[in-house]
Amino acid sequence: MKNIFTFSMRAYVEDTDLGGVVYHANYLKFFERARSEWAEYLDMGLEWQLAQGCYFVIAHAELDFLKPARAHQELDVVSRITRMRRASMIYDQYLHPKGLPDTILCRANITVVCVDKDIKPQPLPDRFIQLINE
Amino acid sequence: MKNIFTFSMRAYVEDTDLGGVVYHANYLKFFERARSEWAEYLDMGLEWQLAQGCYFVIAHAELDFLKPARAHQELDVVSRITRMRRASMIYDQYLHPKGLPDTILCRANITVVCVDKDIKPQPLPDRFIQLINE
Amino acid sequence: MKNIFTFSMRAYVEDTDLGGVVYHANYLKFFERARSEWAEYLDMGLEWQLAQGCYFVIAHAELDFLKPARAHQELDVVSRITRMRRASMIYDQYLHPKGLPDTILCRANITVVCVDKDIKPQPLPDRFIQLINE
Amino acid sequence: MKNIFTFSMRAYVEDTDLGGVVYHANYLKFFERARSEWAEYLDMGLEWQLAQGCYFVIAHAELDFLKPARAHQELDVVSRITRMRRASMIYDQYLHPKGLPDTILCRANITVVCVDKDIKPQPLPDRFIQLINE
Repeated sequence: MKNIFTFSMRAYVEDTDLGGVVYHANYLKFFERARSEWAEYLDMGLEWQLAQGCYFVIAHAELDFLKPARAHQELDVVSRITRMRRASMIYDQYLHPKGLPDTILCRANITVVCVDKDIKPQPLPDRFIQLINE
Repeated sequence: MKNIFTFSMRAYVEDTDLGGVVYHANYLKFFERARSEWAEYLDMGLEWQLAQGCYFVIAHAELDFLKPARAHQELDVVSRITRMRRASMIYDQYLHPKGLPDTILCRANITVVCVDKDIKPQPLPDRFIQLINE
Repeated sequence: MKNIFTFSMRAYVEDTDLGGVVYHANYLKFFERARSEWAEYLDMGLEWQLAQGCYFVIAHAELDFLKPARAHQELDVVSRITRMRRASMIYDQYLHPKGLPDTILCRANITVVCVDKDIKPQPLPDRFIQLINE
Repeated sequence: MKNIFTFSMRAYVEDTDLGGVVYHANYLKFFERARSEWAEYLDMGLEWQLAQGCYFVIAHAELDFLKPARAHQELDVVSRITRMRRASMIYDQYLHPKGLPDTILCRANITVVCVDKDIKPQPLPDRFIQLINE
């Protein structure tokens, strides 16, 4: 079963703002890091994608900012794919402090579309679909 | 009528990624710049907020990434408040290239909550409500 | 005389960190915004550069962080070119709060190299040299 | 001997710009991540610093951008402290692709000053000096 992936990271000073906690836009970066690491883990990382002429762009995102993450905090980003269409998929992602899986700090639904060089939607790579459905 | 505000800005190289267009998370920054300029325009900018002990945090965001914005492109960010509750409000914001008001590149609904120093919700400032409803 | 350019901007919450002031790396962004606006002002902006196959990359930077810039502060970035070589130039740039030209917050020397698509140095565009030396 | 520290990280899409490689300002973030991880490793991380009322701010930075780092590239950031004064220290830091220690991509000298809450310089923590000189 490959349809779940946990990525561990640390927030840094660069991620915070004057409120003393992580700046809201940066959670989108954390979620993308997790999707990127997942793709690398599946051997379908950026290099493979570019070789395939397959580019992933974000079409839609919904974010709930529940509790603040802090600088130097160790975080786990948990990712799942909840829906696959022909050319797109929806990720459900959330992050929690390391060791506190029930303390969800931020949760997102991210719709990713597979496009070609001209930004026209194209089918998700077969290999990707197979690995996720395994 | 003060419930609409247009903020003009330019995207820069810093805002782009290897896809050659604006990185998705950065639209959240652009939308916040627009809300900040709006607050400054109403004389209720950051200094006033901090003096009041009134902090605005983002609770929820929904984003549609419709067309890419490009580096050095001049953009107008249009903001409206579509709902005000006791301690929160919802912004409808979108951005388009300067001079092309029908070419919406990105659209967002952002829920902003007014909190005190302990991050407890508190009523929106009266002055703010009055100005928006004027 | 075109060899001086002042760019006015505002710092935002996105630019700060938990220290309550602008995060140090972001001054490099502010300086690049100023160089970009200067190039646009000279009608040699990004579009023109890409059409010429002329790309500007940063080879070296020296920064003095003298006083902190604050969120929502209005800033003037002053830029000068202090040296032009065949394929590179050195900018002297600094920023101060609007209306306080003697309160320098950050100062930088930035070496920019003109390269082609293969990242090989190439001569600075003639038109650029002429305009700066005018 | 504790005066050398290697931090391993990966660059992501968020770190790149339209040139297809890491945006120059982001190397300053990478170097700070490395210094942060070093401090955490020495048990003198952010929490300890805040408890001590000891804040580290950047006073000066010199950067050589030698070769571009790429998205999804695994990087090692090597850090050393080359000089310690009463209230400040100078880091020599560079990064190279994982497994290619001689291919330096970016190198920096960063002067970090220890300040108190009022941003007045104060002596470096004894414990820090001892650990580095061990």
